Amino acid sequence: MSKRQLKLGANLNGVGNSISFWRHPEVPTNASVNLAFYKEQARKAEQGKFDLLFIADGLFINEKSNPHFLNRFEPLTLLSALSEATSHIGLVATLSTSYSEPFTVARQFASIDHLSGGRAGWNVVTSPLEGSALNFGKGEHPHHSLRYEIAEEHLEVVKGLWDSWEDDAFVRDKTSGVFFDSAKLHTLNHKGKHFAVQGPLNVARSKQGYPVVFQAGSSDSGKDLAAKSADAVYTGHETFEQAQAFYQDVKGRAAAYGRQPDDILIFPGIGPIVGRTEEEAERKYQEIAELVTIEQALNYLGRYFEHYDFSQHPLDEPFPELGDFGSNSFRSTTDRIKQEAKEQGLTLRQVALRASTPRSNFIGTPEKVADLIQQWFEGGAADGFNIRMVVPNGLADFVDLVVPVLQERGIFRKEYESDTLRGNLGLSIPENRYIRQAEAVRGN
Amino acid sequence: MSKRQLKLGANLNGVGNSISFWRHPEVPTNASVNLAFYKEQARKAEQGKFDLLFIADGLFINEKSNPHFLNRFEPLTLLSALSEATSHIGLVATLSTSYSEPFTVARQFASIDHLSGGRAGWNVVTSPLEGSALNFGKGEHPHHSLRYEIAEEHLEVVKGLWDSWEDDAFVRDKTSGVFFDSAKLHTLNHKGKHFAVQGPLNVARSKQGYPVVFQAGSSDSGKDLAAKSADAVYTGHETFEQAQAFYQDVKGRAAAYGRQPDDILIFPGIGPIVGRTEEEAERKYQEIAELVTIEQALNYLGRYFEHYDFSQHPLDEPFPELGDFGSNSFRSTTDRIKQEAKEQGLTLRQVALRASTPRSNFIGTPEKVADLIQQWFEGGAADGFNIRMVVPNGLADFVDLVVPVLQERGIFRKEYESDTLRGNLGLSIPENRYIRQAEAVRGN
Repeated sequence: MSKRQLKLGANLNGVGNSISFWRHPEVPTNASVNLAFYKEQARKAEQGKFDLLFIADGLFINEKSNPHFLNRFEPLTLLSALSEATSHIGLVATLSTSYSEPFTVARQFASIDHLSGGRAGWNVVTSPLEGSALNFGKGEHPHHSLRYEIAEEHLEVVKGLWDSWEDDAFVRDKTSGVFFDSAKLHTLNHKGKHFAVQGPLNVARSKQGYPVVFQAGSSDSGKDLAAKSADAVYTGHETFEQAQAFYQDVKGRAAAYGRQPDDILIFPGIGPIVGRTEEEAERKYQEIAELVTIEQALNYLGRYFEHYDFSQHPLDEPFPELGDFGSNSFRSTTDRIKQEAKEQGLTLRQVALRASTPRSNFIGTPEKVADLIQQWFEGGAADGFNIRMVVPNGLADFVDLVVPVLQERGIFRKEYESDTLRGNLGLSIPENRYIRQAEAVRGN
Repeated sequence: MSKRQLKLGANLNGVGNSISFWRHPEVPTNASVNLAFYKEQARKAEQGKFDLLFIADGLFINEKSNPHFLNRFEPLTLLSALSEATSHIGLVATLSTSYSEPFTVARQFASIDHLSGGRAGWNVVTSPLEGSALNFGKGEHPHHSLRYEIAEEHLEVVKGLWDSWEDDAFVRDKTSGVFFDSAKLHTLNHKGKHFAVQGPLNVARSKQGYPVVFQAGSSDSGKDLAAKSADAVYTGHETFEQAQAFYQDVKGRAAAYGRQPDDILIFPGIGPIVGRTEEEAERKYQEIAELVTIEQALNYLGRYFEHYDFSQHPLDEPFPELGDFGSNSFRSTTDRIKQEAKEQGLTLRQVALRASTPRSNFIGTPEKVADLIQQWFEGGAADGFNIRMVVPNGLADFVDLVVPVLQERGIFRKEYESDTLRGNLGLSIPENRYIRQAEAVRGN
């Protein structure tokens, strides 16, 4: 298979990212804590030869939070269970570097990597929600740039721990009684600005070396972290031009770190709405949009702006001027919202409804959605896509209707190439740093 | 079934607690990271109607560590996967309160509780190994009494978070658009000496209320914590008299906290060796004991004493006088070792070999082992037992040979009574503290 191949992730999110998605007649209202629901979705994605399942996360709720956020599975335990319901698809969990210990993070992901036979991935985030600090005994949520400084060091420590054991360290010779070669066990001894971690880790590397590292922030700091240290980026863009600019930006930054373009894969998140006809697709969107009230939409919008109370502003006048407010949490999202409101002259009502029920560009017949995907993929805007479910059975629609078109066009696999996530994504197995260092000493 | 019923846990530990168990011809050398092995054990235990699977843990290794400790699954991810391979058996994971965040702990256990339909349990430990501090950026491992002070507050916070949602908080009425009743969502607002955690937790309670709480330290502080806050205790005793004294001690302490004797279950850990004949059982023990060299035994012993180098002492002279040394880490174990060495006049060699390949009293024919179990159970020394695997197929031997004898005698179930762990253990569902408080206000 010589033609460059598209990658696909399925973003599983229970009762959904939309505030009122759960009210749709076809959505199980307990989906966010319903393992049978997740298993069905996971198996459907695997049937569609998706590369990976992707689980988003958050560490703070209050009574204004999205229903899915209030009561949902924790990602690492969920994916460990789903590893048993699947055999080839990758398992990517979101976990914040702002409120976790590198030793525990390295260990839990390595453990999932062993449980699943090399299918684990970690989506590195820094926790956008201010309130997270309150659940972890911190006085103050670290500022955006500090969070990324912490993230960079955290990720470096985790990777160091993952290299604790060389791949052939475990001899396990019953006759001689040698269980392992102590020369192949390495102690990290990290002492940095934010973390001090000795090691070694009490789990070996899996057959894919490291779990695949995603990064999901689209700010400058986020792009830099991704360019330096991630295997893949989860991002979000409204238009082809924006996605293309982001793609070139990140690949350019990666090149500056001495990496090849194929070393880092860009996955825009999209919420496709597929119908057998244009009208069917439009009807599906309308069914969802009509479930949301304006009060709910204002609350939802406020969540991006540190729970700002938008109800104090008139609904049908231009989106209010907020200055620099809202720049710490979901920075790239709030910047985009402000910019679009200004450029397109949107009212508060329009901004709120659009934010609560985003109307994807990827809406229409299977061919139309496949055309857009192909355009982005071949036009330097995406290496793959993370598919979010925005209508009931959206994943099944995509698998049953769009995937066959992509396969027919020769840009998406008909069978898995590998049984590891790294293998399916076409990413190389990272060399153990201690072997690399030893080779450097020998002058290789 | 009116007769008091014995409870059974299966302590799964890969290549085993013994240093050289992995060398036995019948042991898979990669067992500690072999999910198929764990699944087989889990299913065997469930076939034997065991109450629970129990996973021990540790947070620090070095080159002297037991083979199983060097490279093993992390307990929470492992049990999440095993939840899918089983349907009735409880899933108890060890996790330290010294190096974890209550919000994360509450969340991961609650998530497993939902994934498994109410079968989760948490074995609360304080991390006996000094080195753990080095993997978590702490200058110093907290002293024994401080660790228990932290543990008590940690556990209290976790339980508080587990009560964030009243059981009927989720209305999920599609017509009215009411997803939950905000009067039934509670914010903990804990501000204590060691933790500050606001809440609420982003997972509801499962149908067993809380995961079952085990406690596993046998020091005075450990017994007090258990008596006050645990549902069950995992302990270890050489003799019936010791076990009986411990049992009465803990039940007495629980009574002082206003609890009933049945509110807290005592599980001694035993490593039974069962043969169809006495000779077969003895042969199984010998096969294991002969796998250990004296050098390995000294290293293993040293692990309990902060990696003390025992090889500096003569092997065949009385066990050396260590004074108060080794009192911080595995305090109850080192106290016991010192006391036995003194009382029985043991040499260093004898102590080391005994520590590395403990010779259980529970060795012999199925009837003999069942007799001992029944004696401890009916004589006020145990409510159940955690069965450790000390010979290959030890769990299968126990299930196939001993369990039928216990069932025949009417002291062990033939079918599960419940599909939750709490239900099978006969423990009541903890009332949500906010309902209790509201009732107190109303004068109920």
